[in-house]
Amino acid sequence: MKLGSLQSDCKDGSLVIVNRSLTRYVKADDIAANLLSAVENWSKVKNDLQIRSDLLESKKIESHDYIESQMMSCLPRTWLFADGSAFIHHVKLVRQARKAPLPETLNTVPLMYQGECARFLNPTENIPQRDFAHGTDFEAEVGVITDFVPMGTSSDEALKKVLMFVLINDVSLRGLIPDELAQGFGFFQSKPASALSPVALTVDELGSYFKSGRIHLPLEVNYNNQFFGCADAGAMHFHFGQLISHAAKTRDLQPGTVIGSGTVSNENEAKGSSCLAEKRMIEQIKTGSMKTPFMKPGDTIEIQMKDSSGQSLFGRILQKVVPAQ
Amino acid sequence: MKLGSLQSDCKDGSLVIVNRSLTRYVKADDIAANLLSAVENWSKVKNDLQIRSDLLESKKIESHDYIESQMMSCLPRTWLFADGSAFIHHVKLVRQARKAPLPETLNTVPLMYQGECARFLNPTENIPQRDFAHGTDFEAEVGVITDFVPMGTSSDEALKKVLMFVLINDVSLRGLIPDELAQGFGFFQSKPASALSPVALTVDELGSYFKSGRIHLPLEVNYNNQFFGCADAGAMHFHFGQLISHAAKTRDLQPGTVIGSGTVSNENEAKGSSCLAEKRMIEQIKTGSMKTPFMKPGDTIEIQMKDSSGQSLFGRILQKVVPAQ
Repeated sequence: MKLGSLQSDCKDGSLVIVNRSLTRYVKADDIAANLLSAVENWSKVKNDLQIRSDLLESKKIESHDYIESQMMSCLPRTWLFADGSAFIHHVKLVRQARKAPLPETLNTVPLMYQGECARFLNPTENIPQRDFAHGTDFEAEVGVITDFVPMGTSSDEALKKVLMFVLINDVSLRGLIPDELAQGFGFFQSKPASALSPVALTVDELGSYFKSGRIHLPLEVNYNNQFFGCADAGAMHFHFGQLISHAAKTRDLQPGTVIGSGTVSNENEAKGSSCLAEKRMIEQIKTGSMKTPFMKPGDTIEIQMKDSSGQSLFGRILQKVVPAQ
Repeated sequence: MKLGSLQSDCKDGSLVIVNRSLTRYVKADDIAANLLSAVENWSKVKNDLQIRSDLLESKKIESHDYIESQMMSCLPRTWLFADGSAFIHHVKLVRQARKAPLPETLNTVPLMYQGECARFLNPTENIPQRDFAHGTDFEAEVGVITDFVPMGTSSDEALKKVLMFVLINDVSLRGLIPDELAQGFGFFQSKPASALSPVALTVDELGSYFKSGRIHLPLEVNYNNQFFGCADAGAMHFHFGQLISHAAKTRDLQPGTVIGSGTVSNENEAKGSSCLAEKRMIEQIKTGSMKTPFMKPGDTIEIQMKDSSGQSLFGRILQKVVPAQ
């Protein structure tokens, strides 16, 4: 099933089911008002949603044109966004870029911070930039939406708590990160509002692309309408079960928790990058200087993931940077 | 006005108005279902709430016994909990305790991290402890609940966005902090679920105790039924306008955002401490060794704030540590 949130008067949007080819949708707000509510009552609503999804797929129910610009982030807001950094190659490159040491536990303990989730930007919403010196960057990620996860859940058990998959553009302000991390409390101002993909996929919908706790598909990133990256999202060092278990070590995770993979990153340079910071660091290593600037007003970032037949799975995140009002 | 959340089937609780002496309450869930909803629609509901509060105070409406154990945290969950560290004396002591350097911007830029707010513990709920080596500690704080705050709001303007005040027990796992901060991403596992006071006070209710962006009253802390601290909450180096403005530098803050002061701390040792880590560090400095252990099952922490007449303003946070199930 593909579930999304239509823009409405409500901050949580209005629940819709989208067909596999992302051309039609049917309302589902009579089953659950919004996706957060659906996730919080998943065992009660999933069958009804599945029945309607099947009707949509077989064209046996009235449906509407899917229009990208009408969609909110599939989960417009939630109670916890815990973003990991499960691609070790990314950690190595960005730390090298800001001359920060690698953590001793790089390969054994996931890096994780708590990100803004009081409002995710719409997937086609402009990214407001207050100051170019903030160094606006995108980070293309994959993520999961979890069910309730009790404190102390093991990695294996945690994997069973995955309800849905999403894509994430984790907007990062590189210019603010060094000073903020030097204070010792981690990211805050340097991680403004992110955006999620227009639709979330249920576990069965992703099928065999999800194995060993990882999504085994390339994540396509276009920057200003040009190829920027197509790194394999399956190359996560820590899988989602490990990230969820890490997040749940000392707290229960409530239904609707979003766990991010961190920037998708591969060592194979032909796969490009999923954020500007990596590309800049590779330039630095190769040529002695960083050539690619961070984002400026007018720059666009497009993130999507296609299956082996070329079908876009989650719809597009397509955002433009604009000066903040 | 004093507003609280009665335990109910709903995770957001049920909105009630509590009288000034914390003996009676009246339901208000017909005006707004819960406090989060009230805050999100504050301009529409505040007059109706005030009218009912006046009826309660003048005993002209049917009311019920206020029973501490029936209360949830006044805001049982919300979209963002940004916890500052506005008492410089606390920062100095805890960094000295863990042999961490002081940030260069100690006096000019607030420290702030994003804390768990998907579920605040009830104010009389046990604190689950998975492992004594985690070093469970309490941190007695004051905090505010804000209205919508646009990105880039100044400190002065931000002060006008304060809707309510709360007390906070920011539970901290001292044993996990050094390794977690060494990774560079800030707190996550070391900051499990906190608790808020049973009631929140509107700005007018606190009256002249709130000036210059600070609450000028002592915060009483009893540990295992013995005096532990009564530090002046008005000694914040950064006031709440500055903390809110800091949080809103690169994001809008949604209504219901909780901003914490960080552990209340005074240089005057007669005022005691508001967390175990400070007391331990003072012992270390004076005697060469830390004598007071962190919390163990059965230990209790009580936090409240009284006005000059001795009336408890926010009700009590009264929690016991127990082994996690």
